[in-house]
Amino acid sequence: MSSLLVVGSVAFDTIHNHLGSHDRVIGGSATYASLAACQLAPVRLVGVVGKDFPREAVDMLRNRGIDTSGLEVADGKTFHWEGRYSDDLTSRTTIQTDLNVFADFNPKIPTGFRDSEFVMLGNIAPQLQLHVLDQVENPKLVIADTMNLWIDTALDALKELLTRVDILVINEEEARQLTGFHHPLAVAEALRALGPETVIVKRGEYGALLFLDEDIFCAPAYPLKAVADPTGAGDSFAGGFLGYLSEQGHTDLRQAVICGSATASFCVQDVGTEALQELSREHLEKRIRDFRQLTCF
Amino acid sequence: MSSLLVVGSVAFDTIHNHLGSHDRVIGGSATYASLAACQLAPVRLVGVVGKDFPREAVDMLRNRGIDTSGLEVADGKTFHWEGRYSDDLTSRTTIQTDLNVFADFNPKIPTGFRDSEFVMLGNIAPQLQLHVLDQVENPKLVIADTMNLWIDTALDALKELLTRVDILVINEEEARQLTGFHHPLAVAEALRALGPETVIVKRGEYGALLFLDEDIFCAPAYPLKAVADPTGAGDSFAGGFLGYLSEQGHTDLRQAVICGSATASFCVQDVGTEALQELSREHLEKRIRDFRQLTCF
Repeated sequence: MSSLLVVGSVAFDTIHNHLGSHDRVIGGSATYASLAACQLAPVRLVGVVGKDFPREAVDMLRNRGIDTSGLEVADGKTFHWEGRYSDDLTSRTTIQTDLNVFADFNPKIPTGFRDSEFVMLGNIAPQLQLHVLDQVENPKLVIADTMNLWIDTALDALKELLTRVDILVINEEEARQLTGFHHPLAVAEALRALGPETVIVKRGEYGALLFLDEDIFCAPAYPLKAVADPTGAGDSFAGGFLGYLSEQGHTDLRQAVICGSATASFCVQDVGTEALQELSREHLEKRIRDFRQLTCF
Repeated sequence: MSSLLVVGSVAFDTIHNHLGSHDRVIGGSATYASLAACQLAPVRLVGVVGKDFPREAVDMLRNRGIDTSGLEVADGKTFHWEGRYSDDLTSRTTIQTDLNVFADFNPKIPTGFRDSEFVMLGNIAPQLQLHVLDQVENPKLVIADTMNLWIDTALDALKELLTRVDILVINEEEARQLTGFHHPLAVAEALRALGPETVIVKRGEYGALLFLDEDIFCAPAYPLKAVADPTGAGDSFAGGFLGYLSEQGHTDLRQAVICGSATASFCVQDVGTEALQELSREHLEKRIRDFRQLTCF
């Protein structure tokens, strides 16, 4: 089992949805990904929070086995995002973004983390993702997420980053924006031409597509009767995916995608990170078995 | 192998899309479904066309083994639909609909067709779908498609129909409209409460979900590099699905869904019914094998 370095945002999210308003719940890409991966592999978290970040939240991460010694506490307030979801949860509008200490985030990888074999670059500026890679000695596998903001504002850095990652994990809409193509094979071909050997296109409630050479794997999302909160689903997917590979030593990418999908399906069943905090290995394995029943023919 | 009765529209479609304009190509729900099913089972087609419907088109259907003796030729012109697709093919707008002879369509099932064991009620008014069922003696399996128009204008008849069909095949958007729910399990539960034992929710480029009792099957759409024309994809799915069940005598619904998805994936690769006209059993079986590779883990 190899150590897994997770770098990304740690945040407060204020979420308005069909269930009500949820004020300042713990969120951020690194938080979700770490909580998703921690049952599978030893997670090393790198991020920044402000002085207002509660000790209980750090304790919660530690109690899940996450190494938080790379979580910098800076002068100022923690990154805060506030948004409202549509009733069907398929779209959301940002009400307010306060970057706070995240505006000056300059990820420093602690010496003890530099030998990490598996690296997850959560969705932060590609310049910072590159800066992280410069500090890691000899990673076995690097995966990165990105978003429309960086496609619009930092395309050159993003393209440089893509030449240095093994697996790009990206939302379908943003993959279409980045490539200018619509249909999955054309999108994947264009993305792989930018560098990453493997591409995973996240399709929200429709699952995920994995592209590796000529091989394609199509994973469903777990059908649910109700979703509480899709925040962090993509980061949970990536965390569960890379957690599986770290545990197994980078073997079966298809199984890893299913592990990521199963993890994300738990994430969305409660608001914020609540469901991930409670997730047991037993429940995860049961759901992975359910995925088999869901897709076999 | 049992006979399969297909009732629905037979039409001219004028299609404007990213490839250009395609004037008066042969279309309609019964045409697509019949061409999709005809390799798997003997198809009996019931529909209406006008005097302008070309003999060559009827010959084409006959040459594929479709029994067209239930295709009424009425005084007047054939149903004509004209529409324009968005460049990514995810939406379309109707430019013109000329119902013509279809406005007075009153499906008469020929005596020789009344013993059909498998019945596909393509997307026509639910009153007409009910009228077809009244004329079939003892069907083993009835599947029906519907659309938003009938949800808006003929809800009572549609609800009566649903108590008499075994399998409802419906687009996800329309399933949501009909039930008021969004998430797949809630949608399926509400639809099954209306009558059909089995529900198939079509999700376009995201595949299809099959709900039968507590069992759920999630089938992907075949990932393509390019799509020429999605017209008739849903009808091709239903035709391939029911064709498989007719051939096998109603056994494995999961295999039937994959057969439907494979058939639809060919349909969209050319404009109108062109690809279905050329489809061979060998190509179909090859693609069904590809679906296994696409989903196994």
